[in-house]
Amino acid sequence: MDERLERLNRLPLREDLRGLHPYGAPQLDVPIQLNVNENTHGVPQDVQDAIVEAVRGAAAGLNRYPDREFTELRASLADYLGHGLTVEQLWAANGSNEVLQQVLQAFGGPGRSALGFPPTYSMYPLLASGTGTAYLKGIRAEDYGLSAESAAQQVRELAPSIVFLCSPNNPTGTALGLDVVEAVYEAGEASQTIVIVDEAYAEFAHLGTESALALLPGRPRLIVTRTMSKAFALAGARLGYLAAAPEIVDALRLVRLPYHLSAVTQATALAALHHRASLMAEVEEIKHQRDRIVKELDRMGLRPAASDSNFVFFTGLRDAQRIWRGLLEAGVIVRDVGIPGSLRVTAGTESETTAFLTRLEELLSQEGQGSAA
Amino acid sequence: MDERLERLNRLPLREDLRGLHPYGAPQLDVPIQLNVNENTHGVPQDVQDAIVEAVRGAAAGLNRYPDREFTELRASLADYLGHGLTVEQLWAANGSNEVLQQVLQAFGGPGRSALGFPPTYSMYPLLASGTGTAYLKGIRAEDYGLSAESAAQQVRELAPSIVFLCSPNNPTGTALGLDVVEAVYEAGEASQTIVIVDEAYAEFAHLGTESALALLPGRPRLIVTRTMSKAFALAGARLGYLAAAPEIVDALRLVRLPYHLSAVTQATALAALHHRASLMAEVEEIKHQRDRIVKELDRMGLRPAASDSNFVFFTGLRDAQRIWRGLLEAGVIVRDVGIPGSLRVTAGTESETTAFLTRLEELLSQEGQGSAA
Repeated sequence: MDERLERLNRLPLREDLRGLHPYGAPQLDVPIQLNVNENTHGVPQDVQDAIVEAVRGAAAGLNRYPDREFTELRASLADYLGHGLTVEQLWAANGSNEVLQQVLQAFGGPGRSALGFPPTYSMYPLLASGTGTAYLKGIRAEDYGLSAESAAQQVRELAPSIVFLCSPNNPTGTALGLDVVEAVYEAGEASQTIVIVDEAYAEFAHLGTESALALLPGRPRLIVTRTMSKAFALAGARLGYLAAAPEIVDALRLVRLPYHLSAVTQATALAALHHRASLMAEVEEIKHQRDRIVKELDRMGLRPAASDSNFVFFTGLRDAQRIWRGLLEAGVIVRDVGIPGSLRVTAGTESETTAFLTRLEELLSQEGQGSAA
Repeated sequence: MDERLERLNRLPLREDLRGLHPYGAPQLDVPIQLNVNENTHGVPQDVQDAIVEAVRGAAAGLNRYPDREFTELRASLADYLGHGLTVEQLWAANGSNEVLQQVLQAFGGPGRSALGFPPTYSMYPLLASGTGTAYLKGIRAEDYGLSAESAAQQVRELAPSIVFLCSPNNPTGTALGLDVVEAVYEAGEASQTIVIVDEAYAEFAHLGTESALALLPGRPRLIVTRTMSKAFALAGARLGYLAAAPEIVDALRLVRLPYHLSAVTQATALAALHHRASLMAEVEEIKHQRDRIVKELDRMGLRPAASDSNFVFFTGLRDAQRIWRGLLEAGVIVRDVGIPGSLRVTAGTESETTAFLTRLEELLSQEGQGSAA
């Protein structure tokens, strides 16, 4: 590996990439994988069958370039999101990472900046760096909350080109009130800030949580991103999307690679959208397990964050690394997000969740940690 | 549309994107499409069946993120290319456009430059612009040829960070001798220039044409890109790839979006690679039609370029626009690549090729153009 690194260093790599390591949650072969917020319930059989049939329908035409505008898929996504959205307001790419990258290419880049509020989705700074955009770190309250007042003031002070509001936030799991989005949008008026609300986990929010989609009318600088990786159980199919004003979509057409979304991806996503009833039933079961985790961690004396997502962030551990290793030894992998005393766990199936909770309680009792550290 | 443009102009778009139009060959519903160099023979039935079965195998696991390293696919691509290549030397992305974009992100960018030799693949300047890389236009001979001496001299003078050698060249169709690649690589020693040989059409080259893959040993700055869009009849599946030194692949890992290649794309490409025999039979038939086009155009008094690809570039037309429209009226779409008196046509099936040649000859005779203009 040292020799490989030496050889890499001899290449004319961009200076800002030197010494970096590739992004990567470990891809380990562990029986219970609760580390990357996948939908562990799996793809329902009717959705699998529909995907296979859709790909069969597309296979004969794969010698042709795909529909560059993926119009049918965009119409189906608009229909799914509701809120009176039309096909002109929808856009998609290979995962929401690519959607965000395109937004940064269009509205960020050299001489411009993007503001995030850590702890938040770890790809934001990497996407900024990959597009030459300066990444600014905003500040949250001690409990990781973000008030409308604080967020708006930081936007006014920093005047970023782009602001990332992750709601529900990854890794903490809590959704933002729409007042925060409204205040940030208004605060960004002078700096013409593009406001991205990343709603990757929106489908798991508690009843009554409003989506920022409701704020789109009259706000041409607002973008709401979503993904089919979580609620739709399609992390492997790579389909992220956004809703925004039609002129935002026009802007993205200037930076997207032509034919970036394959005919197979379009067919796969369409099939899942058409069969979403069984997927939405899984979402309800995941929310149930998520609430169970929060309740149980609380009972164990830990401090779980309120979660509107398919995962729970919890703190109050004396030695998070030891717990992480202890869980792994029992075949359960969770995520160490680099915050001392804390871990993040995906809500799995009932049995996966039970395995996690049982093992965690054993590990805590080994160190006599029945109450908070 | 004017109102949409006005609304786009009110957004805080990057200055260098203002006034640009999205890339796009027209996607028209025309019976005989010979304009974007697809494999018009279609996906053979055994390949279609294999793709459907591969996707069936992948469908149950789509709730999981795909193999970020797509190791099985890279091994299969290495096996296909031969030349003693190993899995560490292969890399892939959603179309060769994305492969090239990643190379530009790693080795180009602000303050750096990329050299192409127009007329060549029209995406090079767009990919450069999208990554903030300055695009330099090199010079070809009047017959669109590029000698080792001329190419090397231009590289020494311009000292670009990256050079694109398209071989066979799009849109002219002619392959470069390996002496050109060797001379350019050597000329780029002082400037540490990354040399990309874009071999998208390599499978259609005449017997005896050597691939730049043979030059990879001992040349860590050399990259050979390929695609499954042409010979493999998979333009719709979006799979481009490259072979290079392992440290080039390490560099790309620093800029690629995590999980950029979906499990469905990986399965589809693998299935086609396993069933390549029937695809390679199609390639032979396409080469036959390509040679037939060259011979017939020559007989009609036009000047077709020597072609090692699945298309023919020809010049000698008095009014290329009139011919383009006349062909379209007969249901045949070819490509106007913006060079006066010239058009580019994809070699189709036997009947498509006949339709093109018959209609072209009619159009030429209408203006009494039986001999060169």
